[in-house]
This record gives sequence, C-alpha cells and structure tokens, in this order.
Amino acid sequence: MSSLAPEAHIATIQWISNEYFGLNGTHYDTLEAPPSPLEFGRICRISRPVLIKGHRIPGVDRWTDEYLQHVMGDRSVSVALTPNGYADAVTPGPDGRLYFAEPAVEQMSMGCLLSKLACDARVSAKLSEVLYLQSQNGNLYSSSYFDSTEDELPELAPLRQDVPPDISWCTEALDRHPDAVNLWVGNDLSVTSIHSDPYENIYHVVRGCKVFTLLPPSEGWCLRERLYPHAKYARPHPGAPLVVQPTPGADPIRWSSILHPDHDDTLPAVAHPITITVRAGESMYLPAGWWHHVRQEGGITIALNWWYDVEMQGMTWTWLSLLRGPEDVPSGNTEADEENL
Amino acid sequence: MSSLAPEAHIATIQWISNEYFGLNGTHYDTLEAPPSPLEFGRICRISRPVLIKGHRIPGVDRWTDEYLQHVMGDRSVSVALTPNGYADAVTPGPDGRLYFAEPAVEQMSMGCLLSKLACDARVSAKLSEVLYLQSQNGNLYSSSYFDSTEDELPELAPLRQDVPPDISWCTEALDRHPDAVNLWVGNDLSVTSIHSDPYENIYHVVRGCKVFTLLPPSEGWCLRERLYPHAKYARPHPGAPLVVQPTPGADPIRWSSILHPDHDDTLPAVAHPITITVRAGESMYLPAGWWHHVRQEGGITIALNWWYDVEMQGMTWTWLSLLRGPEDVPSGNTEADEENL
Ligand SMILES: O=C(O)CCC(=O)C(=O)O
Ligand SMILES: O=C(O)CCC(=O)C(=O)O
Repeated sequence: MSSLAPEAHIATIQWISNEYFGLNGTHYDTLEAPPSPLEFGRICRISRPVLIKGHRIPGVDRWTDEYLQHVMGDRSVSVALTPNGYADAVTPGPDGRLYFAEPAVEQMSMGCLLSKLACDARVSAKLSEVLYLQSQNGNLYSSSYFDSTEDELPELAPLRQDVPPDISWCTEALDRHPDAVNLWVGNDLSVTSIHSDPYENIYHVVRGCKVFTLLPPSEGWCLRERLYPHAKYARPHPGAPLVVQPTPGADPIRWSSILHPDHDDTLPAVAHPITITVRAGESMYLPAGWWHHVRQEGGITIALNWWYDVEMQGMTWTWLSLLRGPEDVPSGNTEADEENL
Repeated sequence: MSSLAPEAHIATIQWISNEYFGLNGTHYDTLEAPPSPLEFGRICRISRPVLIKGHRIPGVDRWTDEYLQHVMGDRSVSVALTPNGYADAVTPGPDGRLYFAEPAVEQMSMGCLLSKLACDARVSAKLSEVLYLQSQNGNLYSSSYFDSTEDELPELAPLRQDVPPDISWCTEALDRHPDAVNLWVGNDLSVTSIHSDPYENIYHVVRGCKVFTLLPPSEGWCLRERLYPHAKYARPHPGAPLVVQPTPGADPIRWSSILHPDHDDTLPAVAHPITITVRAGESMYLPAGWWHHVRQEGGITIALNWWYDVEMQGMTWTWLSLLRGPEDVPSGNTEADEENL
C-alpha cells in the first residue's frame, strides 16, 4: 500500500503533528449533560476527546458485588491473567528478548473474580497474578447481535438486561449500530498499554475511576513502534506461576515500545499527552485512531464501552493510514531498545 | 509554516491522492429532499459533494426579469466585465506574458444587466464583452450582517426580502452562521476558473443550470498551480475595449494553469474530476477545500450561495494545508507553460 519513502513519510507526519498541535493544543471539552445526536455529530467531526457527565445508564445503578454475583451465578467468565497487570503489552520473555505478550485466560465465576480483585487491591504487590476481565470481543453485544443473524449468547449475557446495546445519541449521529459492546472489570493493578483502535469509542465508568493518557493520531510517531515476536502467558502445570510462552510461527506484532507514556519524560518533548480521568458515572468520547494508555484507581473498577466502526467514506481512513507511519518498523530487540524499557 | 522538502511533500500528496481515490472513487450522493440538520452533519463529516433536490426557497419563485428590475429599480449594481468570460483567471497580457486578471467592474442597473445578458446569450461570440454579476463579497448578506455590528446595506439589499440569510439545516449542523451570502447572475459566456475556498458552500440554482467540474482537495496537485503577476481589466477611455492592465507592485497570485479542467485530456490521468450539473431548483453541497470550475448553460443563469467558515478545530485545516502542496510554486511564465495554455 505504501510507496512513500520512510524518511519523507516521517518528515510529513512531524510537520502534521506540529500544525495540528498549533491549532488544537491539548484542549478537551467537558459536557455537563450528554450531547444531542446533532451535537455529537459536531463532536465527531472535530474528532477530539470529550468528557461527558450526566449520561446515566440506569441498569448499572444496582451493580453491587452481590447483585453481579447473583445474576451471573455459577457461569464461568473468561478472565485475563498476567503476573504484572500488563495484558497485551511488551514484556521480557524466558530468553531475555522482548515479546508482545497476550494474557493467559482462565475461567472463573463472577463471584470468584470479584473476591480476588478485592483481595488483590488490598495486598497488591504481594500477589503474583493480576486479573482483568477485558475480553473486548463484544462480551456483552457483538456483531452477531447487531447483524441480526444468529446471536451467539456471550458469557456475560445475563448482564445485558442492565446495559443498552447502543448509545442513542451516538447511533443517530453516526447512522450505524455499534460493532461491539464490552464490560471491563479490574482493579488498580491492571494497565492497558498504549494503542489505538479503528473505532469511535464511548467509554463509561460504572465504578472506580479510569485514567486515560491520550495522544492524537498525529503524535503516534512519538510512540516508537517496534516489531515484537508474539507470546502468550501460560501456566506450565496447574498451580505453577505464569510464564511467557513464545508463539511458534506467529507474525510479529507492531507495538509501542513506550510502556509508561503516563510518566514524565518517557515521551519525546514534542508529544503532548492529554490526561483525562473518567470517574464513576462519567463517559468519555474517545475518537477513532487516538492513542490511549489506561490505568485504574479506587479498588475494583467496572466500565463499559461501545465501539462504533470508523467512517470509511471521506478522508478519515486515509488520514489515519498516513499517520500510522512507514510500514516497516525496526525490531524491538536491539540493544538500544532494551535499555529503554 | 512549511518545513517539508517539496519532493517529499509532493510524493506524500500523490500517495494520499491514490489512497483517497481508492476508498471514495468518484461517487456523489443525490438527495431527493433537503437533509435534516443531523443528516447534513453526517454529510459534512464525509466532506464529499452532494446534489440536493427539493430545497425550495419560496421567495425566488417570483424572480422574473420584470420583478428583479422592478425591485432593484435604478440602483446601480457592480458587474464584472471581461472580453472572454474569464474573470479571476489566467490570461495573456499586453506584453504576451500570462497574468492573473481580475475583471473590470462597472455599475449598471439590474434592468440593463439583464437585457445585456439576454442579448449576449443570443448573439454570443459576436459581442466583445461578457458580463457577470459575481461580486462574491457577501453581496446579499456579509459578515457585517451576521456579526450584528453595523450592517452595511449591500447594493442588492432590496432582494434580501426573498433570500433567507441562512440555510437552517446547515446552520444547525455546523453551529454557526454563514460568513457570506451571494447572488450570481450571468449567462453561458461566463466561466469561473478552477479554484478552492476555505468554506463549506451551499450553492442553489434559481434559473438556468450550472455545470461544476470538481476535484477533491487531494487532487489539487494535478492542477499545476503557478505564480502569475496580477492584472485587472480596464477600459483606457470610455467606449474603448477592455485591456489587461498589470498591477504595479502587486504580489503574484498562485493559480491553476489549467484553464479547461472540464475538457478531456487537460488533466493528468491520475486526476478524477467529478461533473455535477445543478439545475434550477436544485442545490449542491460543495465541501470546503474542493476544487471547482463552473460554467453555465441555458441563457441567463441566476444562483445563490451560502458560505460557512470551515471548522478550525480538529484536523480539517491541517489536512487542507498539507494538500495545498509546497509553498513555492514556479512562475507561470516559462516557455513550457505558455505552450500549455
Ligand atoms: O479500559 C481499559 O483498560 C482499556 C480500554 C480500551 O482500550 C478501549 O476501550 O479501547
Ligand atoms: O457560480 C460561479 O460561477 C462560481 C461559484 C463559486 O466559485 C463558489 O460558489 O465558490
């Protein structure tokens, strides 16, 4: 697809990055009430994050631990496990090389998950494993629901009664249904490493608080993406600790080599991260292509999100493709990179 | 502003141009009725031209020649005059060099304008001067009206009673008033040379028919912009024919060297012009930054347009700046260029 010379491509992105920042700065709007469809359409056109207060989802008001346990009963849910809270992130493997490691996934009841999360939050660093319900495959509603073909009931189907399949002002503004609706249940120990998605995202916090570190698509070049071999955490035998298990034959994964964009001085000075804290009862519009690193605060954190496919007509896709930078990125396993991690 | 190397800049634009065309082709939508504000918001987000039928402006239904003459009475209106129908276009000057020539402007009554336009349309090529009311300075409503500071009444003020100051679905979608509303009165002999404006444009044809040749912002690089010295048509003494009069000390003007993008083979093969014919009673949404060449058919042609400032938040401005290409363009007065005109 790309026939751009890498140096020219990067120079162009740097120019764009500077121009875009000059016009937009790090400003974001806060709305005291949800937008109308018309207002949300304007927001999407501008494609900058917005913190939205007062968007109530009545069903989730009753989401105590007891209620969630009761509704879900003995059903098993898929939970991501890592030793360090970093699922889908760059981590050293058994051979000392860096890998893009997916979490291990284990099944447990909602009751078990909640009690472990509560316990972890208390004793934190002492525990060796971090749990995060983050299956992000449309674990509440997926395209099989919206396409009104055969709806495969997800593990979390009993919670659908409390969560609307779409956000009316977003659906009307974009003239489309969501592609996926997800539940996220974790605690302070889980972190989502910085990445971007080809989705317009409405992210709502039910309990606890999420701290997003954001970069516009134009500043993705500051994230020093590298190629990492693929791996997955696995438990060699029941009861054993998790180990990074390289995936033989898998394609390498392009991922940011910056683990802590939320810490000062890990990003180049020309990057202008925006920190938005989303508290219980608040929502955020996270525009397609925006880079986000997410951590959580306040014990058990529960959130929902609605992903809407990005518009394929017009210039958005071409813009985002250009800003992704050259197709070829170097390996993340050079000495210089290892020093930086 | 630009620190991009010209070759890299052009290569990037060519890449964008190809990607954008691959995704969008030359398709444009036709609506059978005006959009709601919500629908128009979606259209603006995609930023591709749309032909809109059924958008009635009741006041203009009575715009016969007699009515216009009667309402305007003896008031003088500013009319653009050129020998060839090309106002604001590239034209050879007295010294054989090419100039960007503005039209001469003369005052006459609406009655006089309409009768000359009717006559010209009949005897066409035999006449030596082409008239076009195209003052495009907000000749019906300008920012002085919308800013509700002191409204300077324009020459065409008596026609305001028939023309609404804004288009409600556009004003609501964009959350802003127009910047200018213009009347255009000409005939088959007038042509507007290809250019782009930093405005969202709602263009409505009242009488006759307008043929737009459009290129997306990504294909502006195909227009071979050049620098031309500035000139203006002038009449050396009353009754004398118009001559191109170079403007001493004026900055050169950057303009497309392609006079007939509506003719086959004048654009490079990688350009994909879209032709949209707007007939009496129809409107067109012409997105900000789209290149347009406009000719008219069907005798006297009367049109209105509403210009809305382009959104300065978000990526649009940076995108359009990038696509404008390198700041330095060559002079239009090299031998090679003269051969091409
Ligand atoms: O909440 C999180 O941990 C990550 C959320 C996320 O990446 C998303 O909604 O796209
Ligand atoms: O109607 C014409 O001749 C030109 C219209 C135009 O350039 C515009 O509306 O921007």
